Amino acid sequence: MVPYKNLSNPELESLKFKLQQEYDWIKASGLSLDMSRGKPSKAQLDLSDGLLNSLKSNADCIDENHLDCRNYGEMEGTPEARRLMAAMMGVNPDHVIVLGNASLNIMFDNISRAFTHGICGNAPWGLNSKIRFLCPVPGYDRHFAMTEYFGIEMINIPMHETGPDMDMVEEYVNNDSTIKGMWCVPKYSNPQGITYSMETVDRIASLKPAAPDFRLFWDNAYVIHSLYEPDERDFLPEIFAECAKYGNEDMVYEFCSTSKVSYAGAGISAIAASPRNLADIKNHMKYQTISHDKINQLRHVKFFKDFEGMKEHMKEHARILRPKFQLVDEVLTRELGGLEIGSWINPRGGYFISFEANEGCAKEIVRLAHEAGLVLTPAGSAFPYHDDPLDTNIRIAPSLPELDELDRALEVFTTCVKLVSVDKILSER
Amino acid sequence: MVPYKNLSNPELESLKFKLQQEYDWIKASGLSLDMSRGKPSKAQLDLSDGLLNSLKSNADCIDENHLDCRNYGEMEGTPEARRLMAAMMGVNPDHVIVLGNASLNIMFDNISRAFTHGICGNAPWGLNSKIRFLCPVPGYDRHFAMTEYFGIEMINIPMHETGPDMDMVEEYVNNDSTIKGMWCVPKYSNPQGITYSMETVDRIASLKPAAPDFRLFWDNAYVIHSLYEPDERDFLPEIFAECAKYGNEDMVYEFCSTSKVSYAGAGISAIAASPRNLADIKNHMKYQTISHDKINQLRHVKFFKDFEGMKEHMKEHARILRPKFQLVDEVLTRELGGLEIGSWINPRGGYFISFEANEGCAKEIVRLAHEAGLVLTPAGSAFPYHDDPLDTNIRIAPSLPELDELDRALEVFTTCVKLVSVDKILSER
Repeated sequence: MVPYKNLSNPELESLKFKLQQEYDWIKASGLSLDMSRGKPSKAQLDLSDGLLNSLKSNADCIDENHLDCRNYGEMEGTPEARRLMAAMMGVNPDHVIVLGNASLNIMFDNISRAFTHGICGNAPWGLNSKIRFLCPVPGYDRHFAMTEYFGIEMINIPMHETGPDMDMVEEYVNNDSTIKGMWCVPKYSNPQGITYSMETVDRIASLKPAAPDFRLFWDNAYVIHSLYEPDERDFLPEIFAECAKYGNEDMVYEFCSTSKVSYAGAGISAIAASPRNLADIKNHMKYQTISHDKINQLRHVKFFKDFEGMKEHMKEHARILRPKFQLVDEVLTRELGGLEIGSWINPRGGYFISFEANEGCAKEIVRLAHEAGLVLTPAGSAFPYHDDPLDTNIRIAPSLPELDELDRALEVFTTCVKLVSVDKILSER
Repeated sequence: MVPYKNLSNPELESLKFKLQQEYDWIKASGLSLDMSRGKPSKAQLDLSDGLLNSLKSNADCIDENHLDCRNYGEMEGTPEARRLMAAMMGVNPDHVIVLGNASLNIMFDNISRAFTHGICGNAPWGLNSKIRFLCPVPGYDRHFAMTEYFGIEMINIPMHETGPDMDMVEEYVNNDSTIKGMWCVPKYSNPQGITYSMETVDRIASLKPAAPDFRLFWDNAYVIHSLYEPDERDFLPEIFAECAKYGNEDMVYEFCSTSKVSYAGAGISAIAASPRNLADIKNHMKYQTISHDKINQLRHVKFFKDFEGMKEHMKEHARILRPKFQLVDEVLTRELGGLEIGSWINPRGGYFISFEANEGCAKEIVRLAHEAGLVLTPAGSAFPYHDDPLDTNIRIAPSLPELDELDRALEVFTTCVKLVSVDKILSER
């Protein structure tokens, strides 16, 4: 294919005319497609319907501590649920608390607590005039929204194929005590699907934060969410083991959940932390709640049985998701390959494909798609303050639509990419 | 019976000797009884085991909005769960959000939010040097612990048989803008089982708070938790309707849950608030979570079917609880009646009986009981800062033990009350 930029003006004008016709035809066909959020599809949710009756009777409600989970108590979660979630993260079950249905809520609570009471005896963040977080970009919009909500200043850190730019990270974290946190989705990152390299994780683990209450918000949302067989999976070193090499275990809060393992709305979530952090968290949490929903924790353990069962279950998710990701790569390659109007990484796991359009094109592509009936995540969402400085990034979420809908959505999408790119090139000549 | 205070010294000494023998015998028998927390008993929990498989298949997971509750979304809760929880409180379902398993957590979040972001556009409480709450005493220890945790100054408000002392409440709330909240368990209060009178509720509803962000924390924990038949139940006016008479709907956050209706550890909870407050809450909550566990919400609706079903279910709880409350009253009356060493209210609902010992006796009674193998809620727990100024109040929680255990526990308890009271009278002569 000839790159668009190498085409003459008359060629581009003629191409634009053709693309506009295509686009108008699509628009007239009255589509209604949604690729905006990383929601599991019905087929994926159906995989976990055994959860609905995994506890057969009240005898199943007694946990390994002989506690009746229908009643109050056991704020840390049941031993078997702690073991299961610890296995997901590859950490010691003693260092895990299992909570309710949303890991996002745990992150929020940890930040909120830091503001009102401070972390491990340090001054409450609310007393500081300036609190800043490092935000690898593109990243997860809900992380950034939450950070902005608390008035935390966000600093963009570019993502490379190896993870966040570690020169910048080290420079900030090791020298600036206003830097109190860093968001990380270290495996199959949202939205690029990048897994941090071993060197990146080592450099993160060896940080020497200027702030004693600097914390990594290690959101391992896609820790077991591979699309391929074991030998084709990304490898992420276990962060606490890495940090231990440098005596840095207190630097990490790790989060995970079964939102994309069992039910997105009714799973269980967990936090892993060092003994010191865990004691600190529990010391605050005891004022907030008596206990989380342990029945749902047991329900999950009975359904998955153990981590092996959970891994087998994830293969079924992959079986459903993989063709969707492959279709995205196929259609993008077929429609856009060689045109030099966009690039993307074909990830080996996670929930998203991140599309990089030419500069200044993302917003207009999303707008045109929307007018034609295809809802994409708003352009800029993957950046703090919704501000994508180059206006290039578009997040594609292929999980929810069925394959035929996805195919149709990609047709719309690529047409919009082409049309906007041609227009942009013409406008700059 | 002759009041102890009317006995001569030799009579008291001889009584003390006998009581000490009884106590030593009890202590030697190696008891292990717990009346410390308001936990439902196994028989009560068994009533709700239909919850375990009330959703038969994924078809049952679709709510009235045609939303698949296994997936993300619907932060306010499912329409049917909102209707059910609204019926419990007697409010409009549109004014209700249904959340996770713990109403305590909702109260905590509302206070936390007030500190970091402020209520309805008012300044964050964290910016104020002094925030104060009115605390009717005796009251719920977890309310007070949470309030203390946030550094809120607590002011004791005496409880009468009609509810909190309204002269004091009006004086504080209407004149002092540092008063930002008031804890209320308005029906079958914890621990006295008092229901606020109509006049009390009317006076509360007509408050004219000096602080625009003053809120009633109306914890309707025992709203449908009557021990007796309809015509013997306490009546509590619906607070929003009362407040509406004075244009005061924005003054209330109402909380309730099914913790003592279904499972104490795995129920559902709700907040009711005015449209203005609800919009404010949602505007903050959207940063904290995507949605709560809607599957558990549906599970509850399918199990109870509707509010009528829930009320029938509560009759079964009453059938189990009533004999326990009656036994407490019987044994206290038989053992302590006329001795003038203690008083109690025999409540018509709720989870507790509040015992008022003679001045300066409560701590010692609880200590002696503990040494004899009976765990009671620590003396002072029902007061802010664990400080019961007269050292008289002891909370009795009769729900968890079986009847025979409860009988044994009351024997220990009344022996301790007598022994400590005799000692006290002697020491003051």
